Amino acid sequence: MDTENPSERFDVKHCLTESQEEWIMQDMTFILFGATGDLAQRKLFPALYNLFLDGKMPVSISIVGLGRYYCSNEFFQSKVEKALRLYSRRAVQTSGLQDFLTKFRYFAFDATDRGSYLNLFELIKNRENELDIPENRLFYLSVAPKLVDVITSNLYANGISQTLGWKRIIVEKPFGSDLKSAQQLNDTLSKAFSEKEIYRIDHYLGKPMVQSFETLVLANPALEALLDHKQISNVQITASETVGVETRADYYDQAGALRDMVQNHLFQLVMMTALHLPGEVTTKENEIKKMEIIESLRPILKDKVYLDVVRGQYESGAILDTPVAGYKEEPGVNDSSMNDTYFAARLYIDNPSWNGIPIYIRTGKRMDKKSTRIVFELKNKVEESNVLQTEEITPNLLTFEISPNESISLRVNMKNPSSNRFYPVYMNHSTNSKDQPEAYELLLFDAMLGNKTFFAHWKEVELSWKWIQPILEAFQEDMLPLYPYPAGSTGPEAANQLLQSNQFNWW
Amino acid sequence: MDTENPSERFDVKHCLTESQEEWIMQDMTFILFGATGDLAQRKLFPALYNLFLDGKMPVSISIVGLGRYYCSNEFFQSKVEKALRLYSRRAVQTSGLQDFLTKFRYFAFDATDRGSYLNLFELIKNRENELDIPENRLFYLSVAPKLVDVITSNLYANGISQTLGWKRIIVEKPFGSDLKSAQQLNDTLSKAFSEKEIYRIDHYLGKPMVQSFETLVLANPALEALLDHKQISNVQITASETVGVETRADYYDQAGALRDMVQNHLFQLVMMTALHLPGEVTTKENEIKKMEIIESLRPILKDKVYLDVVRGQYESGAILDTPVAGYKEEPGVNDSSMNDTYFAARLYIDNPSWNGIPIYIRTGKRMDKKSTRIVFELKNKVEESNVLQTEEITPNLLTFEISPNESISLRVNMKNPSSNRFYPVYMNHSTNSKDQPEAYELLLFDAMLGNKTFFAHWKEVELSWKWIQPILEAFQEDMLPLYPYPAGSTGPEAANQLLQSNQFNWW
Repeated sequence: MDTENPSERFDVKHCLTESQEEWIMQDMTFILFGATGDLAQRKLFPALYNLFLDGKMPVSISIVGLGRYYCSNEFFQSKVEKALRLYSRRAVQTSGLQDFLTKFRYFAFDATDRGSYLNLFELIKNRENELDIPENRLFYLSVAPKLVDVITSNLYANGISQTLGWKRIIVEKPFGSDLKSAQQLNDTLSKAFSEKEIYRIDHYLGKPMVQSFETLVLANPALEALLDHKQISNVQITASETVGVETRADYYDQAGALRDMVQNHLFQLVMMTALHLPGEVTTKENEIKKMEIIESLRPILKDKVYLDVVRGQYESGAILDTPVAGYKEEPGVNDSSMNDTYFAARLYIDNPSWNGIPIYIRTGKRMDKKSTRIVFELKNKVEESNVLQTEEITPNLLTFEISPNESISLRVNMKNPSSNRFYPVYMNHSTNSKDQPEAYELLLFDAMLGNKTFFAHWKEVELSWKWIQPILEAFQEDMLPLYPYPAGSTGPEAANQLLQSNQFNWW
Repeated sequence: MDTENPSERFDVKHCLTESQEEWIMQDMTFILFGATGDLAQRKLFPALYNLFLDGKMPVSISIVGLGRYYCSNEFFQSKVEKALRLYSRRAVQTSGLQDFLTKFRYFAFDATDRGSYLNLFELIKNRENELDIPENRLFYLSVAPKLVDVITSNLYANGISQTLGWKRIIVEKPFGSDLKSAQQLNDTLSKAFSEKEIYRIDHYLGKPMVQSFETLVLANPALEALLDHKQISNVQITASETVGVETRADYYDQAGALRDMVQNHLFQLVMMTALHLPGEVTTKENEIKKMEIIESLRPILKDKVYLDVVRGQYESGAILDTPVAGYKEEPGVNDSSMNDTYFAARLYIDNPSWNGIPIYIRTGKRMDKKSTRIVFELKNKVEESNVLQTEEITPNLLTFEISPNESISLRVNMKNPSSNRFYPVYMNHSTNSKDQPEAYELLLFDAMLGNKTFFAHWKEVELSWKWIQPILEAFQEDMLPLYPYPAGSTGPEAANQLLQSNQFNWW
């Protein structure tokens, strides 16, 4: 939350009232570094357009896109339009389209050239004057990590980030590659921006289902009853992909699943899960509660990593009957790479609510299914009953599927009264994804509004890197096996054993 | 349960074990009075055939159909086959069909003629000898109530019901038209059959969902948690039909909704509901528990009926945009009829579990929808939270739909993260009805096996008539209004007020 300008403070209650929710969004300049990149085309332009369709934009906004190559404003606007036609979840409407596109200006930019910054500053100020808008500036860094330092320093050195209004900066992942580099990156950013002004984006926090966790529990005594911690036997958080390393080997072969998925996305899901267990709903600020959860996460010692962590790497296999190469055969990957493309771990949160409830997390590339979901397995109390044969009765599962489909389901045991056999069924609700905003829509809206609820605080990032560090080191020092698994499978067998040792299995 | 022959005692546990459930069904004769009637064609023959397909029949069975008019065995068997082709839930299979049909014999029968009984006895015995089966006889009375007395007396007087094996009699509704007539009917039956031998059929007790209640709760800690009595604010049991009186005015204009639907079907649903609330699962016999529930039902005094009961009668209206006549205009209905075609009531069960939880019941003809369902409304605790606006948040509902579709659903409040508006969604599981046995299949199987669990005990029938009696009298003495409601509506407005006085509404 930006407190320099109290008039635009964000109040949660204001967002939850009338048919027309109440919010005030101030006029601003949105400066996008990386405007010719993939993320801009696929996610950011469509997000801005859908916000525009919903009237969730400032009355006046100046959008400046920056890229390395020269093009005219008209050409850039036609690129934006093309991106909308390709990637917008809602069809492009003729009405209003020109109005939307004319908000965009393009600026050819060299991040290392001081002159570039001076000219950019001129452009920003000219547009502010033209549109008669205050000096509210939102910077979005969709650039390679190595450029963050130079851009931030220059924004400061050239006065662009000293405004009479507010300033904010949105930073894309990765936020460092270990504790030290993350701290360095944060130091750099902090020279020009305060913590309140830094929006570390994690698009998993923008998923509608994730954003709904808190209210789902608050608004539904039924879910509150099911999520009673006395009732939960374990939690399983899965983020599986069917794609392999694709064209990202340069980055990915250095990062691995642990850095690419676990430290950020899975940790945020762990925090959001733990946060919204009924007992945990308090009036504390989210960011304080999240920090408390990470601080309660039981440390995994470097020489004990093998007990609670499984790492894997995919071999050749088949996805939907199409043969695919193994990781080491992928273009750009070192053929003796020991990089992890699969990661699973058993976590414990040592606080009163979560005492004794294991949280299993796993993520992998080239898995059998694309799915991000949180499964709460409820305790199976039926063995206490002598009326039922228990072998057929499986635990009740409350599942929140986050993507690619959004759904809530409760698995229950039904009986066929003719055969007297039990079988599991799913009471399910799936949301029509076309009606749902995309993660970047929700997050850009929040950033424009000045609401940091669904962005990662530095303390969360730092604590998660600290927790991860022994595992990173154990990986680097090859202190535990790297299990191969066939592409298109559910991962290495060792990950199943991780649960079986507690008499559980993955759902 | 038939105790004369201990070897065929039914043991619930035996039915719940291996892939091939264990049961022993003894060879028998099935004697069907009313074999040319509608129920036989639509329900009983198809039920027998589907049991045959599932191998749920005695090795040898003699089936004797009785009707008033003469026809040959061959013609009768062709009638049976025709009924299967019209009404069987599963397609008729060539293989085995002849085998099934040759079990059937027809006998032209006059219920008031002693000679008829002697000839029937001859036929039964001849077939028993022919098939070499014991004297196990299952009588099914699908006849007008006035014939029950004469048939039962003659079965006894002519020795047909004195067997060396077991005997059982299945009796269709109505079981009396008030307390006195029900007692008389029971006295008649009791001359020839013991309580253990009398199977009062209520096809609502044969619905798969109703039969599953107990195990659903036992096998699912999730449902157990939701149905915690501390969590339930009220229960609503609805059995609505879209049809009018059809061709049954002769009977219906004397009976009304109270006798036709409430005393039997709705009362059984109330008992089954109350029985299987988690706190109520004990080792007592079902029939004892059901009686305890009816005995705990708070009496409604004759001069206070208007406080807790609403009666209605349909006027002309439209069903699916087709205009339909009002009740008084129906053929065979007295045009000044004060008969009830709609009934709603508020019940309380004065036992520790149900203390303070109202149970609302309603049934009606010519309603907007055909549906039998039980809705548990959970307490809405969200007003305690100041984070949410409560107007949009509706109570969680756990609904068991019994017919025409079978489903379980849980209604929860979801939030649209873009608009921050709440809207209700249904987490739902629907059973494919083709895979489900029909009520008569399950009940005939149980009767053939000697399992009375899902048949009404005399005490239940007697106690429900006793409880109903003041209401019957208040209706007869016109002590409360008869509210008109348009065909195709949800019933009279007064039924809504019944709930609104407790701050509830019908779901």
